[in-house]
Amino acid sequence: MRTITWNVNDQTVEMIDQRLLPGEFRLVKFSHYTQVVEAIRDMVVRGAPAIGAAAAYGLALVAAKTNARTLSQLTVELHQAGEKLALARPTAVNLVWAINRILTKVDHAEVDLPGLKNLVIIEAQRIADEDVEVNLRMAQHGALLLQDGDTVIHHCNTGSLATVDWGTALGVIRMAHEQGKSIHVLVDETRPRLQGARLTAWELQQYGISYEIISDNAAGYFLSSGEVQKVLFGADRVAANGDVVNKIGTYMLALTAYTHQVPVYAVVPTSTIDMSIANGGLIPIEERSMEEVLNLQIDGMPVTPEGASARNPAFDMTPHHLLSAIVTEKGVVYQPFKDNFGNLLG
Amino acid sequence: MRTITWNVNDQTVEMIDQRLLPGEFRLVKFSHYTQVVEAIRDMVVRGAPAIGAAAAYGLALVAAKTNARTLSQLTVELHQAGEKLALARPTAVNLVWAINRILTKVDHAEVDLPGLKNLVIIEAQRIADEDVEVNLRMAQHGALLLQDGDTVIHHCNTGSLATVDWGTALGVIRMAHEQGKSIHVLVDETRPRLQGARLTAWELQQYGISYEIISDNAAGYFLSSGEVQKVLFGADRVAANGDVVNKIGTYMLALTAYTHQVPVYAVVPTSTIDMSIANGGLIPIEERSMEEVLNLQIDGMPVTPEGASARNPAFDMTPHHLLSAIVTEKGVVYQPFKDNFGNLLG
Repeated sequence: MRTITWNVNDQTVEMIDQRLLPGEFRLVKFSHYTQVVEAIRDMVVRGAPAIGAAAAYGLALVAAKTNARTLSQLTVELHQAGEKLALARPTAVNLVWAINRILTKVDHAEVDLPGLKNLVIIEAQRIADEDVEVNLRMAQHGALLLQDGDTVIHHCNTGSLATVDWGTALGVIRMAHEQGKSIHVLVDETRPRLQGARLTAWELQQYGISYEIISDNAAGYFLSSGEVQKVLFGADRVAANGDVVNKIGTYMLALTAYTHQVPVYAVVPTSTIDMSIANGGLIPIEERSMEEVLNLQIDGMPVTPEGASARNPAFDMTPHHLLSAIVTEKGVVYQPFKDNFGNLLG
Repeated sequence: MRTITWNVNDQTVEMIDQRLLPGEFRLVKFSHYTQVVEAIRDMVVRGAPAIGAAAAYGLALVAAKTNARTLSQLTVELHQAGEKLALARPTAVNLVWAINRILTKVDHAEVDLPGLKNLVIIEAQRIADEDVEVNLRMAQHGALLLQDGDTVIHHCNTGSLATVDWGTALGVIRMAHEQGKSIHVLVDETRPRLQGARLTAWELQQYGISYEIISDNAAGYFLSSGEVQKVLFGADRVAANGDVVNKIGTYMLALTAYTHQVPVYAVVPTSTIDMSIANGGLIPIEERSMEEVLNLQIDGMPVTPEGASARNPAFDMTPHHLLSAIVTEKGVVYQPFKDNFGNLLG
């Protein structure tokens, strides 16, 4: 099932409320785009591709429910909604990309009012479908790298919940599982937001894939013991030379795996590869609120002393030489990444 | 102030209830050795040297409060109490060491009944004093390695709370601070038991030392950014070649620091160096209950899905080539550790 869907019958958007996972699985249904703005802002939906699809469907709601009587009225409404949707999570690249893709089509369309409504809804659906298609192809290419009996370490959440369906690194694992390979996943809990412990563990349970959660800092123990065959993660941004910026902790994981000659794979759509950035050192790293580090409880009691401070970089940079390959929807890319990205992207 | 003290006036043992930290600072007072057995078992007191001192004071309570009328009655009482104290945490080496040290003295003493009582109390006091003395000397040697303005990463809790006073790696930081050097500490929260976030942060607050808590997996970001000058930790056991077994996460931290040419120091009493073990690969690693990984809450809600499994290795092994030096109470030891341990230990 998809993380986010368009309901054709009553023209609504339905999504999984990810804030309640893993405790509760609840679908929420929206009939007005402002509800989608709130859902993106409040992280009902998260993960760059999923947010992009949510914003696209937000515009589809505007088109489906509008009282506009003219083309220009609807066009204005769509642009106004687009601005509000784009501001819901200001740093999410896919959000702006999806909104601009639809609004550009709208501005250049030569259709009547019903035609424009249809165009928006169809384009939103296409954005979601394309995401599923791209992820499925990544999963197929990547699954060839996994062997029956492999134990893999996976960082953060890169599954269906972060996309529309399948996901990136977790999609590769799921595809290998569906091909009948026995795969065991050591799930990095992924401090501070614990997307591994919360979301990846939950997804793996749904798929019936064998897993165990580990503290991020325990990966070194398992990598040095010889019980891990592969390391997999996604990426938020890839530079032209193959340097990868991804969730905090990815770098130490990749470095340790490399030291023990355990293959390391980043799984990313080609849209994540930014050929305009020469290397990963040029990508700014967001530091987020210290509350994300300090808000832990055990037995209902806070863990940290009152008045404690914390630092919270959300991402880190993994140099390309630590990666065995980068899996994309167009195929598996090996070193030298810069040359091979050129060939791949044309 | 000491983590654990002998109260001469009313012949009692007083210790900080570490289970309540950092939320509450409460001293608990014991007048019967069985209370000490419970305190060790329930982790009111933790950290190998602190547990050793607690057990010694447990025997001191037996001597102070006994109704024995003969030497042999008291000797039997002490041996019986020693057995119960030794079983409170079966894997703690210092516990058995401290008990045996006192009981050996008891068995070879040529004194009368009051003399035997005194002997036990004095020997317990000596064990605690020696721990403070050893830690103080480690702190003095290690503090020479820290410079004014240094930012250091520290793993786990190695402070007063783990010993009788001062501690190992944290003692070095505290000594440098008391010498007037400005030191900033990035405190690894140290999953899964969070001794860094709970105890090290609390201790640093007491000492007025500047600190920020970080997720363990964020160390790579700070080490690669150039803002960290030193990495410090203690050790549970050191092999003859200098390989160090310490709290899980130490290995990935040391490997990453080494990669970025940031000096890595293990701070250990020479009693932790086991010359009978050739290398760290021969030291068995304890795997603890998966509950320690799965028991996190945020906003009172469990983080992991119902029925989730986890792996929980409590320690990992850091190969000696990653260490710049090992700080002991007898001086700072450099590579080759095996030869230099020989010189140091005679």
